[in-house]
Amino acid sequence: HLPVTVIAGPCQLESRAHALETAQALKEIAARVGFGLVYKTSFDKANRTSASAARGLGLEAALPIFAEIRESLGIPVLTDVHSADQCAPVAEAVDILQIPAFLCRQTDLLLAAAATGRAINVKKGQFLAPWDMVNVVAKLNGADNDRVLLTDRGTSFGYNTLVSDFRGLPIMAKTGAPVIFDATHSVQQPGGQGTSSGGQREFVPVLARAAVAVGVAGLFIETHQDPDNAPSDGPNMVPLAQFEALLRDLVALDRLSKAQAAAAA
Amino acid sequence: HLPVTVIAGPCQLESRAHALETAQALKEIAARVGFGLVYKTSFDKANRTSASAARGLGLEAALPIFAEIRESLGIPVLTDVHSADQCAPVAEAVDILQIPAFLCRQTDLLLAAAATGRAINVKKGQFLAPWDMVNVVAKLNGADNDRVLLTDRGTSFGYNTLVSDFRGLPIMAKTGAPVIFDATHSVQQPGGQGTSSGGQREFVPVLARAAVAVGVAGLFIETHQDPDNAPSDGPNMVPLAQFEALLRDLVALDRLSKAQAAAAA
Amino acid sequence: HLPVTVIAGPCQLESRAHALETAQALKEIAARVGFGLVYKTSFDKANRTSASAARGLGLEAALPIFAEIRESLGIPVLTDVHSADQCAPVAEAVDILQIPAFLCRQTDLLLAAAATGRAINVKKGQFLAPWDMVNVVAKLNGADNDRVLLTDRGTSFGYNTLVSDFRGLPIMAKTGAPVIFDATHSVQQPGGQGTSSGGQREFVPVLARAAVAVGVAGLFIETHQDPDNAPSDGPNMVPLAQFEALLRDLVALDRLSKAQAAAAA
Amino acid sequence: HLPVTVIAGPCQLESRAHALETAQALKEIAARVGFGLVYKTSFDKANRTSASAARGLGLEAALPIFAEIRESLGIPVLTDVHSADQCAPVAEAVDILQIPAFLCRQTDLLLAAAATGRAINVKKGQFLAPWDMVNVVAKLNGADNDRVLLTDRGTSFGYNTLVSDFRGLPIMAKTGAPVIFDATHSVQQPGGQGTSSGGQREFVPVLARAAVAVGVAGLFIETHQDPDNAPSDGPNMVPLAQFEALLRDLVALDRLSKAQAAAAA
Repeated sequence: HLPVTVIAGPCQLESRAHALETAQALKEIAARVGFGLVYKTSFDKANRTSASAARGLGLEAALPIFAEIRESLGIPVLTDVHSADQCAPVAEAVDILQIPAFLCRQTDLLLAAAATGRAINVKKGQFLAPWDMVNVVAKLNGADNDRVLLTDRGTSFGYNTLVSDFRGLPIMAKTGAPVIFDATHSVQQPGGQGTSSGGQREFVPVLARAAVAVGVAGLFIETHQDPDNAPSDGPNMVPLAQFEALLRDLVALDRLSKAQAAAAA
Repeated sequence: HLPVTVIAGPCQLESRAHALETAQALKEIAARVGFGLVYKTSFDKANRTSASAARGLGLEAALPIFAEIRESLGIPVLTDVHSADQCAPVAEAVDILQIPAFLCRQTDLLLAAAATGRAINVKKGQFLAPWDMVNVVAKLNGADNDRVLLTDRGTSFGYNTLVSDFRGLPIMAKTGAPVIFDATHSVQQPGGQGTSSGGQREFVPVLARAAVAVGVAGLFIETHQDPDNAPSDGPNMVPLAQFEALLRDLVALDRLSKAQAAAAA
Repeated sequence: HLPVTVIAGPCQLESRAHALETAQALKEIAARVGFGLVYKTSFDKANRTSASAARGLGLEAALPIFAEIRESLGIPVLTDVHSADQCAPVAEAVDILQIPAFLCRQTDLLLAAAATGRAINVKKGQFLAPWDMVNVVAKLNGADNDRVLLTDRGTSFGYNTLVSDFRGLPIMAKTGAPVIFDATHSVQQPGGQGTSSGGQREFVPVLARAAVAVGVAGLFIETHQDPDNAPSDGPNMVPLAQFEALLRDLVALDRLSKAQAAAAA
Repeated sequence: HLPVTVIAGPCQLESRAHALETAQALKEIAARVGFGLVYKTSFDKANRTSASAARGLGLEAALPIFAEIRESLGIPVLTDVHSADQCAPVAEAVDILQIPAFLCRQTDLLLAAAATGRAINVKKGQFLAPWDMVNVVAKLNGADNDRVLLTDRGTSFGYNTLVSDFRGLPIMAKTGAPVIFDATHSVQQPGGQGTSSGGQREFVPVLARAAVAVGVAGLFIETHQDPDNAPSDGPNMVPLAQFEALLRDLVALDRLSKAQAAAAA
């Protein structure tokens, strides 16, 4: 029972300076609070609600920044890939390739990601049951990659709403893959603002607390120094100024939760 | 921030001896673990899937047993009522009247329950949003009863399945009513066995842990010394032999959770 | 394959004059368009969102009006009952007792209704699968009443929304009971206006057309000469002035649909 | 109000001979029954539940077969694309590019498809509300392609189940795009057989009838001479031997439905 790992960072890679600054701030918080940190940021938001929404810096500009964060700060980096041909070049610059939820059944993308040998974090599709993810793990394992992580980011529940079914965490853990709970996208309201997605930031701590009490290998929480002016996912990112207090509570809960699990085992 | 109260007992009142024995066992566990206990049992299962399923001892036989548990063991008793005319006699013998989820919008039943002056625990209908419960509280308050508790026992999610949306706990708490999480019926699979409801007992601890981490006034957990042979809700009751260990963990999580909430307030 | 029966009328019994006037108007439309008519109205809205909402004339005032409609206009009357003790007196005055969706699992209510010997129309609970209704039919049949009708009025879908699953109509028809589609309550948005339910009147024809094309014994459509000022269900009732044109189309679709079913059988 | 167009064919392109034979058979049925036919088949099943499931002939082998069907039989052809780089070559050989439901928010794929100038049929994601599709149409229109069709293939409803919300058809039609109802995939049970998806073929006629009664520009119905031995979607394809009788009924319903709509307009 390892302590919780936290995948954190701003939704989008906005600039080199912004990335380095945020990564540095998170590294300091991780050291003070005592959790493993993976820096997450996206070089391309490939499925925005609207075509006119900001998509990010793009792959070419992003890769050197990812490399710099890893080297200068010594933090592992995670980013998401959207097509098979992105997997190899991105794998050069990051530690974990992430498969977006909408794409979690795209066989070519999974196989290309698997072939890089990198760890792969697959988000459970909003349209899938937790037990369906065993097939996704099998696709990756079948391609000789067993460094698979599974992330829950909510399940479709009526229109423009997701629900987090916490029974899904132990169900997905039966695959043997470490299970992550994404508290940021689980409170998204897809399409909920007409031409963009809404979110309910106030429920990030609620769902993250539930997840660590149930037992997870990691948490995924996006953060930004000024979410209301962030180019994407603003409504569901946690302000950076509140991140440390939130994580302090979550890490304490996680420690108790894992001690109880260890005692019961 | 009071410690968690636990509403516990067998689904059905099976006999005087069984009730007293179970209540005594739970009282001892509560004393060892350190939680407030309310004894729950039903005198009538009024909405069984099938008409041929066992319904319980009935109101007349039950009331003296409820009274005896309260007097001889000093434990408060909760039971559910199904029609307006049951409220007054039942209120003589118990501390808390419970309104079943299917009936949470029946105005006459709510008003008759309110008129007894007893505390009223209303289960959120599986067909209602958590914010809809503000209207239920208003019906009771409008009848001069402000001793209202609200219980979440899951929300309809596709067919024969419920899901627990933990955002609902703080939403219902905004009404000012203490919020209870019912870990037993939240793992029910309504109608899931053709002529009776199924259940997933293994997820009771999962969801109960999530609830105390989020923060609740109480837990509702049915238990039985031999659930697989219980006349109702067997698939989702916790074996009495496992109850103490489960509660020990939950109470420790609750204590940490409430300490964090107090520090943040 | 009988032509479609239409259960129609205003949601609430507002007054004797209003009831007779509406029933007379519907009788004339039924004669012109050619469908069997059952007059529906409620003497009590027993589960309003808010306790301060209008509930109707009440049982005692309503029964003579029901009797008058049946005798003076020769139209069968349907009304809903909310407790076991209402069944016998109401059965004296109407042809069909209706069990509300929230109450479709309440055994005592079902048995009391069955004992009257009247036809019983049970609305499928929003929280039930269509195949679960076989148990409801069995409860009534087991009490020696085989004059059972089943009505679909939508299924919970996320919060404050219902969805109509048209696979449910043939599934429920397998019980042998005539199946009715309730186009009025299927477009309800439960609790959708804070202290009352909303509705989407524009989708009544959409869903009613789908139902007759799939094949139903009857339709349930509430109507009012001035829905926006009706005391309940205004947002989902069809204006009386549009009722004839709507039914003309539905009856023609039903005729073709049933001719096709007869040819295929 | 044009008569209904039917997009039909086997799920997978199995071989040149099989494709030509099925297309020829469908062409003869279309001529006898009187509907516009578009031949649909997939060169690659890119998101199978399991990596070991058959994926089809592949793009290079398929394009000449598509071209042959168009030229020798004079039938328009539709196929689905899974990545941006497939769009241009596939557009050379077919009349309509289809965007799979899981990919309906992938901006690069939409823009590449739009750039071909071909008609684009986008399937509504199971995780989207019908009104969310206005943003998809806007992405394509913004890329100077206004030849957009929208197809409903069901919406996530609990786990391993879809539901067809027929309110969605008129809602999507408000975008101005012709709306298609996919009766084959709407009865899919995603992941419902463990390592493959199940389906409920018996409900294809049920939902297709509902769709034409509500009003659609087209139907999408996969068919196969031996569905139980087809490499994919067997449980929800209609046997070719039953296709003509099914379509005869649907075309008659569509004719009446559109005559009524024309009279009301």
